[in-house]
Amino acid sequence: MTDVITFTGRTPIKQLLAAVAPLTELTVKGWARTVRRGKDVAFIALNDGSCCATLQIVLDPKLPNYEEVSRLGTGACVAVTGALVASPAAGQQWELQATLVAILGTTDEDYPLQKKRHSFEFMREIAHLRPRANAFGAVFRIRSALAFAVHQFFREHGFMYVQTPIITASDCEGAGEMFRVTTLDAEQPPRVAGQIDYRRDFFAERTGLTVSGQLEGELFATAFSDIYTFGPTFRAENSNTSRHAAEFWMIEPEMAFADLAADCQLAEAFLRYLVTFALNECSEDLAFCNERIETGLLAKLEALAQATFETISYTEAVKLLEKADRPFEFPVVWGRDLQSEHERYLTEEVFNGPLFVTDYPQEIKAFYMRRNDDDRTVAAMDLLVPRVGELIGGSQREERLDVLDERMRTCGIDPAPLNWYRDIRRWGGCPHAGFGLGFERLLMYVTGMENIRDVIPFPRTPGNARF
Amino acid sequence: MTDVITFTGRTPIKQLLAAVAPLTELTVKGWARTVRRGKDVAFIALNDGSCCATLQIVLDPKLPNYEEVSRLGTGACVAVTGALVASPAAGQQWELQATLVAILGTTDEDYPLQKKRHSFEFMREIAHLRPRANAFGAVFRIRSALAFAVHQFFREHGFMYVQTPIITASDCEGAGEMFRVTTLDAEQPPRVAGQIDYRRDFFAERTGLTVSGQLEGELFATAFSDIYTFGPTFRAENSNTSRHAAEFWMIEPEMAFADLAADCQLAEAFLRYLVTFALNECSEDLAFCNERIETGLLAKLEALAQATFETISYTEAVKLLEKADRPFEFPVVWGRDLQSEHERYLTEEVFNGPLFVTDYPQEIKAFYMRRNDDDRTVAAMDLLVPRVGELIGGSQREERLDVLDERMRTCGIDPAPLNWYRDIRRWGGCPHAGFGLGFERLLMYVTGMENIRDVIPFPRTPGNARF
Repeated sequence: MTDVITFTGRTPIKQLLAAVAPLTELTVKGWARTVRRGKDVAFIALNDGSCCATLQIVLDPKLPNYEEVSRLGTGACVAVTGALVASPAAGQQWELQATLVAILGTTDEDYPLQKKRHSFEFMREIAHLRPRANAFGAVFRIRSALAFAVHQFFREHGFMYVQTPIITASDCEGAGEMFRVTTLDAEQPPRVAGQIDYRRDFFAERTGLTVSGQLEGELFATAFSDIYTFGPTFRAENSNTSRHAAEFWMIEPEMAFADLAADCQLAEAFLRYLVTFALNECSEDLAFCNERIETGLLAKLEALAQATFETISYTEAVKLLEKADRPFEFPVVWGRDLQSEHERYLTEEVFNGPLFVTDYPQEIKAFYMRRNDDDRTVAAMDLLVPRVGELIGGSQREERLDVLDERMRTCGIDPAPLNWYRDIRRWGGCPHAGFGLGFERLLMYVTGMENIRDVIPFPRTPGNARF
Repeated sequence: MTDVITFTGRTPIKQLLAAVAPLTELTVKGWARTVRRGKDVAFIALNDGSCCATLQIVLDPKLPNYEEVSRLGTGACVAVTGALVASPAAGQQWELQATLVAILGTTDEDYPLQKKRHSFEFMREIAHLRPRANAFGAVFRIRSALAFAVHQFFREHGFMYVQTPIITASDCEGAGEMFRVTTLDAEQPPRVAGQIDYRRDFFAERTGLTVSGQLEGELFATAFSDIYTFGPTFRAENSNTSRHAAEFWMIEPEMAFADLAADCQLAEAFLRYLVTFALNECSEDLAFCNERIETGLLAKLEALAQATFETISYTEAVKLLEKADRPFEFPVVWGRDLQSEHERYLTEEVFNGPLFVTDYPQEIKAFYMRRNDDDRTVAAMDLLVPRVGELIGGSQREERLDVLDERMRTCGIDPAPLNWYRDIRRWGGCPHAGFGLGFERLLMYVTGMENIRDVIPFPRTPGNARF
C-alpha cells in the first residue's frame, strides 16, 4: 500500500503500524478503544478505522491536560501529535509518544460500546455505533474492498458497468413480491370507475422496486457485448430468516455471444478473483474473522482460491442424491427444486469443493432461460459452495423469439409490456448468458458471518427500517 | 490497455484497432453499423461496443454465404473469423479479411436505428436500442469509466465505501419530496381509528426512498474516518426539466476531522481526478462528444484539469453580483439563494473558472450545517463551474449537540426519530464535513449532453418508468 495523504492533517494508523523506521512528528486522530492509567504513565489504544489494530498512545504526566486525557472513557475522540518510536511492549512494534493531545469528543457511562464483547443481536440495536466494534469494522472494510474488487475484475476483463433502474414498471421474475413505489395520497387515492387511477401516480402507471437488473442488462449486452450491473435490489418477502433481507446488492454480468459453458467460466474466474483479492488485500481483517467469527475461514477461502470447479447436470445430481446413504428431510424427485440440504450434501460431501449444477427442469426455472434440445431442461446453472450452498445462479437466455413467446404464454406472462425485451430478439439478436451473485451472500461466505443483517450497514428486514 | 481475454472466443475491436502488427486468425463478434455491397466485394462496418469506431470487414464473393451476408441490414449481428491486415482505405489502419461469417441475428425494415442521424428525443423513445448508437455508446462508456474512477480515487485516498440504505424511514433534508414505499393493499389499506395503520406495513412504519445517504455516511465517518457513498437517490418532484430526474446516482464523501477548507480541498482534488481520468481513458469517446455534442468540450475539460479553484464567501459573491454591469432576472439580495444566472455569471464572467462559494446564510441551508461564529452564516460550500453552475454542494456538519438541537427546533424537525444521528455528537463526536456530487450532473458536464435523460441508461421522470 502506498502512503495515503489525507485531507485532514492526520496519518492513518494502518500506515504507522507498517512503518519501517521511527518518525519524529506526526498526528493521528481517532477513537479510544481503551484508556489505561498507571502510576506514572497512561495509555490510549487508538483506532481510526483504517485497520483493525490500535496504535498505543503513551501519555506522559507532564502533558498539560494529562489529568483530563488519562481519564477519558472508551469511545472518546482525540487528535494526538507525537513521535512514533519502537515499543518496549510485547506484541506491537510501534507506539506513539504523545506531545500534544486535543480532546475532540468525550463519552459518558451511557455509551453502549464498552470494552466487553457484545452479542451480534445487541449490536444490531445500535447499528449506528457498531462500525466502531472490531468485528463490524472488519466486515465493513471487507465489504468496501470487495466492492472495489468487483469493479476492478470487470474493468480488467473489458466489461462495461451499467446502472440499471431501481424504480420499474416490470417484474423480471414474473412472480417476485415487489415493493410498491407511489406518490398517490394513500388516504384518498384518485379513483376512476371505483379503481385507483394509477395514471395519476408519479409515473402514470403502477411501479415498484426492482428485483433484478438482468432484463435491462441484456439490452446493454446487445450493444456493448460484455456488461455488468452492481446495484440494490429488493424483495418484499415477509420472511425473517438469517439469509434474507428486503434490500440487498446484486452483481449481474451479462455476455453477448456466451453459452452456458462460458457463463460458468466467467463465474469461476470471478469468484476466484474476489476470494484471492480478499486474501491479499484484507489479510488482517480476515485473520480477525478467522479467529472470532468462523474457525477455519482462512483455510476455506484458500481452498476455494485453488479449487477445481466441478460441473454436473441436474439429472446427474438427482441420481447422486438418490444414491446417498443418508436420509433427507425433503424427498429427491426429478422435476423439483434442490433444497439447501441437497445442495450442501453435493458440494460438501460428494465433491468437497465448488460445484456447478446445470440444465435444470424447465418448469422450475424462469421464462427467460434457454430451452435445451431435450425440450425438458433449460441451460441454467447454480454454483454451489461448501457451507453456503447456492452462491451464484445464472443461465443462457432464450434468444429465439418464437421459443421465448411460447414460454411466456405457458408462464402466463403478458408479452406486450415486455416488447422492448422481445425487440432485442427481433433485431440483431444473439446467444447470450449471465448470472447473479448476491453481494451479501458473498460477504457472508468471505467473512463467516451467519446472519445477513451483520454484513449490511443498515439492514432492512420485516418490521425494521431503522437508521 | 493490456489485452483482454474474453470468455466468448472473440477479440474486442478496440484491441484490434490498436494492433501493432497483422494477425493471422482471430474472431470478432458484433453488430453491423453499415453493410455496403460492391461489384466484387462487400464491406461490413462492425461495432462491438468496446469502442466508438468500427472495424471494416472485407467480404470476398467466394465466401459460401456471401449472398446472404452481403445483403444483411444495419444492426445485424455476426461472428467473423479472418485475418487482420493493413487496410488500403484512407482513415483506417486495419481491416479484417473474412474467411468465415456466421449470421447470429438479422434485422428488417422495421429496425428503428437506420444509418441516418436521429434526434435525441426520438432516441429516448427507443432507450432499449439507443446504446447501439454512437453518441449513447460514447456516453455510457464514459459513464462506466467515471464510475470506476470514483471508486479508484477514494480507494487511493484511503476512503471506505459504504452502501447506505435505499429504503428509509427518515428524510435527510427534512423537506424533500419522497416516494413512498409500501406493501399495503392500496385499495383496502388496514386502518386504525380511521387512519391508515402503517404499523401493519412491511417495515411497521411509513417508509420512502432515500434522498441522500449523508446522515448514515456521517455515522460511518465516526468509525472509519474517511468514507464515501455512491448509490441511487430519489426525488419525487414533479418537475419536467432537462436537469432533474426522479432517480439518479449520488456520490457523498464524508471526512471525520475535516473543516470546510479540507472539504473544498477534497472536492477540488476529486473533480480534477475525474476529469483527468476521462481525458486519459476516454479520449476517443470524448473526441466524439467534442465533435458531435458540445463544441469546445475538450478545451473546457483540459482547462478544468489545470485550473486554479478560487474561493469567495457568499457575502462577497453578493457584493460582486450587486456590482455587475448587467441585469438579472432574479434580484440579488443577501439572504436569498443564488440563482443559476447568478452562479453562471460568477463562474463564467467574473472568475472564468471553477469557484467555491462558501458561508451561506443559515436560513437558506439545511439544519445539519455547522453554524459560523457570526451566528448568521453556516460553513457550507457550493462548487460552481462554467456552463453548468453548481456541480458540488457540501458543508461542515454541526458537531455541537446543543447547537444542532436548537437548529432542529427552529427548523421544526422532531429530534426523537433522529436520536441515532444525535448520538454520534454525544459519544466521541468530532468536527466533520462532506459533500454531494450528482453523478449525472458530472456526466452532463463531461460529455456535454444537455438533458439528464441522455446520460442515464433508462431515465425515470414524471410519467415515465419505461423499460
